[in-house]
Amino acid sequence: MAIRKEIPIPLEREITRIEPNSIVVRGVKIEDLIREWNFSEVVWFLIKGERPTPERARMLEAILVAMCDHGPTPASTKAARLIVSAGSPIQAAIAGGILAFGDHHAGAIELAMKLFQESVEELIEERGLSFKEAAQAIVDDHFQRDKKIPGYGHRYHKRDPRPPALISLARSLEVDGPHLRLAVEIEKILSETKGIHMNIDGASGAILSDMGFPYLTGRGIFAIGRVPGLLAEVLLELLAYKPFRKDL
Amino acid sequence: MAIRKEIPIPLEREITRIEPNSIVVRGVKIEDLIREWNFSEVVWFLIKGERPTPERARMLEAILVAMCDHGPTPASTKAARLIVSAGSPIQAAIAGGILAFGDHHAGAIELAMKLFQESVEELIEERGLSFKEAAQAIVDDHFQRDKKIPGYGHRYHKRDPRPPALISLARSLEVDGPHLRLAVEIEKILSETKGIHMNIDGASGAILSDMGFPYLTGRGIFAIGRVPGLLAEVLLELLAYKPFRKDL
Amino acid sequence: MAIRKEIPIPLEREITRIEPNSIVVRGVKIEDLIREWNFSEVVWFLIKGERPTPERARMLEAILVAMCDHGPTPASTKAARLIVSAGSPIQAAIAGGILAFGDHHAGAIELAMKLFQESVEELIEERGLSFKEAAQAIVDDHFQRDKKIPGYGHRYHKRDPRPPALISLARSLEVDGPHLRLAVEIEKILSETKGIHMNIDGASGAILSDMGFPYLTGRGIFAIGRVPGLLAEVLLELLAYKPFRKDL
Amino acid sequence: MAIRKEIPIPLEREITRIEPNSIVVRGVKIEDLIREWNFSEVVWFLIKGERPTPERARMLEAILVAMCDHGPTPASTKAARLIVSAGSPIQAAIAGGILAFGDHHAGAIELAMKLFQESVEELIEERGLSFKEAAQAIVDDHFQRDKKIPGYGHRYHKRDPRPPALISLARSLEVDGPHLRLAVEIEKILSETKGIHMNIDGASGAILSDMGFPYLTGRGIFAIGRVPGLLAEVLLELLAYKPFRKDL
Repeated sequence: MAIRKEIPIPLEREITRIEPNSIVVRGVKIEDLIREWNFSEVVWFLIKGERPTPERARMLEAILVAMCDHGPTPASTKAARLIVSAGSPIQAAIAGGILAFGDHHAGAIELAMKLFQESVEELIEERGLSFKEAAQAIVDDHFQRDKKIPGYGHRYHKRDPRPPALISLARSLEVDGPHLRLAVEIEKILSETKGIHMNIDGASGAILSDMGFPYLTGRGIFAIGRVPGLLAEVLLELLAYKPFRKDL
Repeated sequence: MAIRKEIPIPLEREITRIEPNSIVVRGVKIEDLIREWNFSEVVWFLIKGERPTPERARMLEAILVAMCDHGPTPASTKAARLIVSAGSPIQAAIAGGILAFGDHHAGAIELAMKLFQESVEELIEERGLSFKEAAQAIVDDHFQRDKKIPGYGHRYHKRDPRPPALISLARSLEVDGPHLRLAVEIEKILSETKGIHMNIDGASGAILSDMGFPYLTGRGIFAIGRVPGLLAEVLLELLAYKPFRKDL
Repeated sequence: MAIRKEIPIPLEREITRIEPNSIVVRGVKIEDLIREWNFSEVVWFLIKGERPTPERARMLEAILVAMCDHGPTPASTKAARLIVSAGSPIQAAIAGGILAFGDHHAGAIELAMKLFQESVEELIEERGLSFKEAAQAIVDDHFQRDKKIPGYGHRYHKRDPRPPALISLARSLEVDGPHLRLAVEIEKILSETKGIHMNIDGASGAILSDMGFPYLTGRGIFAIGRVPGLLAEVLLELLAYKPFRKDL
Repeated sequence: MAIRKEIPIPLEREITRIEPNSIVVRGVKIEDLIREWNFSEVVWFLIKGERPTPERARMLEAILVAMCDHGPTPASTKAARLIVSAGSPIQAAIAGGILAFGDHHAGAIELAMKLFQESVEELIEERGLSFKEAAQAIVDDHFQRDKKIPGYGHRYHKRDPRPPALISLARSLEVDGPHLRLAVEIEKILSETKGIHMNIDGASGAILSDMGFPYLTGRGIFAIGRVPGLLAEVLLELLAYKPFRKDL
């Protein structure tokens, strides 16, 4: 659970100070946030305690948008729709969906971030490997342990359409760095040898790492991005289908 | 559970079409959303099936920002921190927080929206009352039934700082309409007679109603806005405090 | 949310007194409960504040056993298995299953209990109808409002095998009373006219009502009975299947 | 996640067979379970696929009773009461309580079971240490790593009253074995050197291990025992207190 010291998140023991008639978030009045801040700036500020540059705020927003919905296929969406279909309220259904953000679902972002962050630090910065060498070492290590590399491959898509859009945006906004570079090198090897490509977890995890998010924040950021989709899917189930249907 | 016919939400039985290598949200490719859409536009699009005007998207974003955190005081935040402190993972803590979005917490937005939407339709449009008369009728009715009016009064704030900022923004963006007008008239009566003012539920509920959101969407929209704060509070508990502390 | 005055549950504002080295549940030391009480006696005691007769304890136990599992078909079981399959821990999966105990699933017991309790009080005790007349009035009322009667019909079983076993046991233990009698009269009419029979919600709801449980306790009692099945199903998914499988 | 081969749980990919008018749990008709089985026998049967001896069923029942409630102090109970107080339904509150069964709460049983099971196998059976030697090795190892031994110490009780009652019952029923013997030896060392005693997690974990439950089942068994208490506490909050009170 250790957070790497180079990528700190603030631990002042108070995020929002509540006093009568006053709500101050990390030192900024809520009225000012309402008037002048974008949503993704506020997300960044709540987690990391600093206001991001416009480019970084735009990139975080695009990552949240990329996560917004994946139709009825994910375990989270299925669980949420089952719960509302059984007659529980919308908050219970959204919560039930979020419960499915385990290590094989949203948690995969954290696993990818952890891999990228530890590898950049240990293989590249400390041991002085090139990105290509580090990528090969990671692939070999997972292959020998018969493990999948988190952030690559998708059970529905051979080529997940989200990574190219995110990577291209990261480069044009110039918010990319060593984690994305490593992630791309890994993809080169995997696509050549196995036809496996980067997925949303890999792309968003690498870019979030380049923007200084510790891996522990990954599945929560996914939750922020996916709640809109969960809500839309739950409203659809509630309004367009018979309750407690057998074919769900 | 009936959704008023004038404020429809789309029920095409499919929100996002998943095909191999393709994710299409309500007819728009995910790559295009990533490149060109704001987060609040996507939230609006997922729920209501149309792209909002820039003013409306900005207003929805400000409402989400207004909901972002309220420190450690709400039942949702307390539940989330208790769960992570007991050693369950972040997704379980966020889910536990959302479970507290019941009728006395986030659900109050829905109750306020329902009141405003039904009153504008029945008292103003159908019966022809003025906004002032309608407001008085609502206050009298709740007073006689010894009921609180949802959207007014706050257990911590005499004057919640968020409504003035939201109302002022709504007016400058020209997205306000009859629901907010009614909400303000109710506040005039309550503040004169009882010193009670509008709260975040009332202000955001009225503006969301003016922008065509059916009341059933209220607590889900609150969830979208509050997950960032839940995440930040949960990370703080996890990283800055001893596990399973007695004083939580 | 009013609890009928004749069927009180204790509201002393403390269930279990915790003092250093001492755990006293409603006045009884935990050591004595461990040594001398059955599980169903403790369930009864926690909810109703009195120790049941052996016959009533046995009947409650049989009701809990009847609820223990229904294979992979219910929404609750599906949600629980999806959550553990996605890599979240067992407590998250059980919780997600319980979230599906909405008005169309476990909540149906409460709806059946409410119907039986209100009908016995209003139709039989106050208005003096016979059980047969009351049953006919209930059937007619639901038919006219085009509503299903809670506690009858099952989406998988034409004849749910659990009600006959429960009813027969209730009679042999002599814990049956007017609610079960009314429930059986309703079934007679429904089976003759529509081929619909009593289900587990109806049988357990009627017997719980006869034993003095207010309807508000119904879905919680179902939860007590069903958690063992949820646990077994979740362990099976975790141990016998590939994680995050598409065919779940 | 490996289950030790000597303590198997059945993995036939079907627990309960559902066919029209038929519910068969691990080969036994539900009607027979209702008529002839105790609740704790059914719990055992669902998890382990065999009917226990009467002594073992009685012991499991006593363990479930020991877990039934711990007043308003645990994180699980606090979370559950907060959720119902905020206006969410009973199933959401019970689920929220169960979400707090993390590694520092109910999960401690699993950690204790894992320690006892691995130590009996590796230290006693394989390496041939005496129980006293094994206990000393475990204490030394945790002391050197500056780790607490799971199953010992309690944040409210110096002497948890539940372990002596459970251990005494286990011995009189003759269901005790090497895991409990090791657990008692550890307690001897800890109580002499540090004044720390066994807690409910240690006692129930050791006895469950002696009865052949793999550690992975521990927190689920705790959930079965604690749901009655969560229900009673939630009903109390709902019926005896003002909604959304600040002092909760």
